[in-house]
Amino acid sequence: MKLHGYFRSSAAYRVRIALNLKGLGAEHLPHHLRKGEQCAPAYLAINPQGLVPTLENDAGAVLTQSVAIIEWLDETHPNPPLLPKEPLRRAKVRAFALAIACDTHPVQNLKVLARLRELGLPEEKVQDWAAWVNREGLSACETLIRNEPGPFCFGDMPTLADLCLVPQLANARRFGVDVSAYPRLLQAEAAAKALPAFADAAPEKQPDAE
Amino acid sequence: MKLHGYFRSSAAYRVRIALNLKGLGAEHLPHHLRKGEQCAPAYLAINPQGLVPTLENDAGAVLTQSVAIIEWLDETHPNPPLLPKEPLRRAKVRAFALAIACDTHPVQNLKVLARLRELGLPEEKVQDWAAWVNREGLSACETLIRNEPGPFCFGDMPTLADLCLVPQLANARRFGVDVSAYPRLLQAEAAAKALPAFADAAPEKQPDAE
Repeated sequence: MKLHGYFRSSAAYRVRIALNLKGLGAEHLPHHLRKGEQCAPAYLAINPQGLVPTLENDAGAVLTQSVAIIEWLDETHPNPPLLPKEPLRRAKVRAFALAIACDTHPVQNLKVLARLRELGLPEEKVQDWAAWVNREGLSACETLIRNEPGPFCFGDMPTLADLCLVPQLANARRFGVDVSAYPRLLQAEAAAKALPAFADAAPEKQPDAE
Repeated sequence: MKLHGYFRSSAAYRVRIALNLKGLGAEHLPHHLRKGEQCAPAYLAINPQGLVPTLENDAGAVLTQSVAIIEWLDETHPNPPLLPKEPLRRAKVRAFALAIACDTHPVQNLKVLARLRELGLPEEKVQDWAAWVNREGLSACETLIRNEPGPFCFGDMPTLADLCLVPQLANARRFGVDVSAYPRLLQAEAAAKALPAFADAAPEKQPDAE
């Protein structure tokens, strides 16, 4: 398989963790987002959104959108599972993941922040925006799992929720958010980062890290 | 079941369509987003994000995030299915849905537009922002299904993709986007709107419509 990504993309980071947990190797093809490489015609031909990640499977099929890719990996390589078996528990895990993947990450991604700068917003306000988005999202996430058993987001195994949480916490810190306000999220992050699958997927461990 | 929503929320609209397709009744509990009713403590207690929709099932369990709710409805009430059976096809449908649910809708929702106004952006620029987000998202979606068989987004039955597309096209028009640039999306929308499940879920048909 081939994973088109970028070391700092939190959506690509989610898929790197999933591949590692499933024990699947992939050739990593970095696209430098800050240099606009994701807008090259050859890349847009496989990912018309001009976003990373994109996964090409061994048969050459193209998959986009990190959460869709992870659901596919989980359906085609069921062990270890990234979602619980019981429908209501699956819904809880997905809701937590989507609170990050829908309402948090896309509102503070590179494209949106660039647009804010184009509109004339000073850099300090752009950074404030990103920090605000992260605080809103993580604060809701803290409440969503406050009463869930740990150490992971939902119990004693990592799920799609942890795959979304760990990269988002990295973003939040980068934007200066005081994450000590989210002790339950930090508990889950600590449990996840103790696993090589998470540690090896970290941005600073990638070949294109700067 | 009880569905907490708002007539104009495109995320609630997706779930209304899913309930109708599955033939499931629900008591509709409107929360007036423009009056901030979604931030009432009683609502935040069940949805800490302060977003609609929220679904309460007959056992009183609380489900949030429209895509997670729809996946749960599909797992617990499999007919008619809202996702294909084959994993790669499921991934394609989910990727299309998430291109809207992650990268389009949340970047132009009420909360984000209100924040832009707070930052001092004039109303015209706020509307431009919303139109830009819709054009970026829908244009990618048009490419994603350009070569898929119709009349729906993915073949001859509506899927999660159509449930996300129809409400987003309504948003796009509201923000003045010229949707004639997306003929394949309009083909899918026309097929969907011919079904009572879609027609009855439209914002203007809801009891709280203004």
